[in-house]
Amino acid sequence: MATDFCAAITPEARMALAERQLAALATREATVRAFARYDTAAARRQLALGATGPLSGALIGVKDIITTADFPTLYGSSDPANAGPLVDAWCVHEAKRLGATLLGKTHCTEFAYPHPGPTTNPHDPLRSPGGSSSGSAAAVAAGFVSFALGTQTAGSTIRPASYCGITGMKPSYGLLHLEGIEAISTTCDHVGVFALSPRDAWYLVSAMTMRRAEVIAARRPHRLLFIRLPVEIPQGDHYPERLAALAASLAADGIDTETIDLPFPLADFRELQKELCYWEAARLLLMPKRKRLVPELEALLGPYIERDLSGYAEARRRREAFQAQFAAIVTKMDAVLLPAATGVAPPRANTGDAVMSRFWTALHVPALSVPFWRGDDGLPLGLQLLGALGSDRALAAVGQWFLEQA
Amino acid sequence: MATDFCAAITPEARMALAERQLAALATREATVRAFARYDTAAARRQLALGATGPLSGALIGVKDIITTADFPTLYGSSDPANAGPLVDAWCVHEAKRLGATLLGKTHCTEFAYPHPGPTTNPHDPLRSPGGSSSGSAAAVAAGFVSFALGTQTAGSTIRPASYCGITGMKPSYGLLHLEGIEAISTTCDHVGVFALSPRDAWYLVSAMTMRRAEVIAARRPHRLLFIRLPVEIPQGDHYPERLAALAASLAADGIDTETIDLPFPLADFRELQKELCYWEAARLLLMPKRKRLVPELEALLGPYIERDLSGYAEARRRREAFQAQFAAIVTKMDAVLLPAATGVAPPRANTGDAVMSRFWTALHVPALSVPFWRGDDGLPLGLQLLGALGSDRALAAVGQWFLEQA
Repeated sequence: MATDFCAAITPEARMALAERQLAALATREATVRAFARYDTAAARRQLALGATGPLSGALIGVKDIITTADFPTLYGSSDPANAGPLVDAWCVHEAKRLGATLLGKTHCTEFAYPHPGPTTNPHDPLRSPGGSSSGSAAAVAAGFVSFALGTQTAGSTIRPASYCGITGMKPSYGLLHLEGIEAISTTCDHVGVFALSPRDAWYLVSAMTMRRAEVIAARRPHRLLFIRLPVEIPQGDHYPERLAALAASLAADGIDTETIDLPFPLADFRELQKELCYWEAARLLLMPKRKRLVPELEALLGPYIERDLSGYAEARRRREAFQAQFAAIVTKMDAVLLPAATGVAPPRANTGDAVMSRFWTALHVPALSVPFWRGDDGLPLGLQLLGALGSDRALAAVGQWFLEQA
Repeated sequence: MATDFCAAITPEARMALAERQLAALATREATVRAFARYDTAAARRQLALGATGPLSGALIGVKDIITTADFPTLYGSSDPANAGPLVDAWCVHEAKRLGATLLGKTHCTEFAYPHPGPTTNPHDPLRSPGGSSSGSAAAVAAGFVSFALGTQTAGSTIRPASYCGITGMKPSYGLLHLEGIEAISTTCDHVGVFALSPRDAWYLVSAMTMRRAEVIAARRPHRLLFIRLPVEIPQGDHYPERLAALAASLAADGIDTETIDLPFPLADFRELQKELCYWEAARLLLMPKRKRLVPELEALLGPYIERDLSGYAEARRRREAFQAQFAAIVTKMDAVLLPAATGVAPPRANTGDAVMSRFWTALHVPALSVPFWRGDDGLPLGLQLLGALGSDRALAAVGQWFLEQA
């Protein structure tokens, strides 16, 4: 793996890292197109000021559905009437307070829905970086920044992290405040974090929520649960065989592993989050407050605005039952393991399938994608780790162990 | 009960209602002090425009932790540096879009914490209107507005509604979008609604979330669950006897009633929401982004900023387990009944005890307070109804039935 931010301990090492990142940006951004807007000169001035704080010297990219005081926010929309306020969102404010240097706003799909933006996959410009946090994942993967902020309502952090061969972390629901982020859903939206390692991701998350930034050590797991998915769920690049082999190898290594079939109804696994999110999004995005949307998004959400409360309420109740069921399953497990995506990055025409994340996002549990294999054409394939609600720190430590085994 | 908004069907009736409200304001606001800021002349101009929409002719008050374009938002703080942006929050925008006339911003306790504001109880100026949505409850109870928007993180809608003798509704978590409302907690905040009847409350909520405003009819319940609270929970004004008598009378009337002891550990019932809310609030309000707070609030939250993730994570897991347990208990019940407060409104020095609401707010279920009895000194006493997650509409219909029996 490339050197992560936590490895750059001295101010000089951090400055050298930032210089390498700005050089990479100058060389590759014309192809990668991670940023909707950025300002290298302003970033250099900021770095030269030598801010103190755990993130001093860290370059950071921010998904363009998160408002900032320094750059306009256009939510991936081409309509300038959609511009947001020039105010730092909570997570941006926290990153700056901790010393980070905001390099720019990263491309995302329009209002974070699956309509591809201009960003390409740093491993292959003909491939998608995933979405909707496309530019945030690509900016970290291309070595332009140490950290990027994104969001996840379905699979918008875990999937692009897998496609781009980096770490993506979606902390437990409610751990990172959503203030200043364009809402898509009132109960599924999460802040997501991209970095080169789980320890970097947790370094950022812990700094934002605890008194100090924590550099976690890798933790060898004792007990792991593998979830075997039904064949109806697309799993390319030999994901099932890779996971089975991983389970066998870990077991041989003395780690207690268990494999179960997906313990939730397949239809719910596929659809639950859509039922919740689209019903909620229709109310947030189609009401007259919202500005003009692309027709695909209007068409997607249109039917949900007519639906009454009963179907939504039923989906909310199912979610609660599954949360309790997952909590029981995850007890005493260090992590639940499954694919981070349905395969390697697809061609750029679409941003890929969020099926591996939707359900877990709706359940609010912490999720991590760690670059672990190489699939077709040598492209990255992520391992997804899930933990009990609130076990974010322990999950990052186990994720770091997997990264170091990869 | 006083005539509710749904009873005023014609534009003329609505205009006459608004005129009576403005006359009441002119007479009583000097004593009630519901409003931090209001503009009668602007409201009259707006009413004269004759907006169309289901809320045309409706005067509305908005709690001062919800931003509006028309009035500054000070979050109940005396520090002008705390002023929020002059932008309509989602709920305010929706109310205006539906034709409502914003009369002003209502007083609340500082950042919605229990530090009394200047508002008095319309039934007795020496009594508290409750908190933290003090002015919103008082404005409806004093007949100044048909609707008021508030919030509930612990008991800030249900309790003031009970003290002020009106209807308070806290819809299911996530049903009303929180955008534009000062966040206290990332997982306990809710928008709350005050009105003269459950049908008015649902009229507003349905208009904001469905394609049309619904005028619900009262629905006689078939099956009701009474929760008997342990004696450690303060219950004044003969609340236990009143509820027992109500259960007996409903049973005699052919309604299937069941009474159970509180099925949750007493310590959790008292503390769970505090553990969640204060941990979250410490991160939102004590980080440097936030402005100066009163010392009491800093002292309350201070210890929580030092606490790490493990205690919080445990509280999150307990919440999930209780959500599943409540869902099982409420199945087939039309409502769960218990006191809306610990008694009638206390003297103004404090805003009362949120113990009757905290736990249920943390569980995200819909709650309703309906004025049902008169306690000491003839002061109002509310009946609290809880429903299954998402059963807001049905709960309002049952609440309307109780109001009509009161």
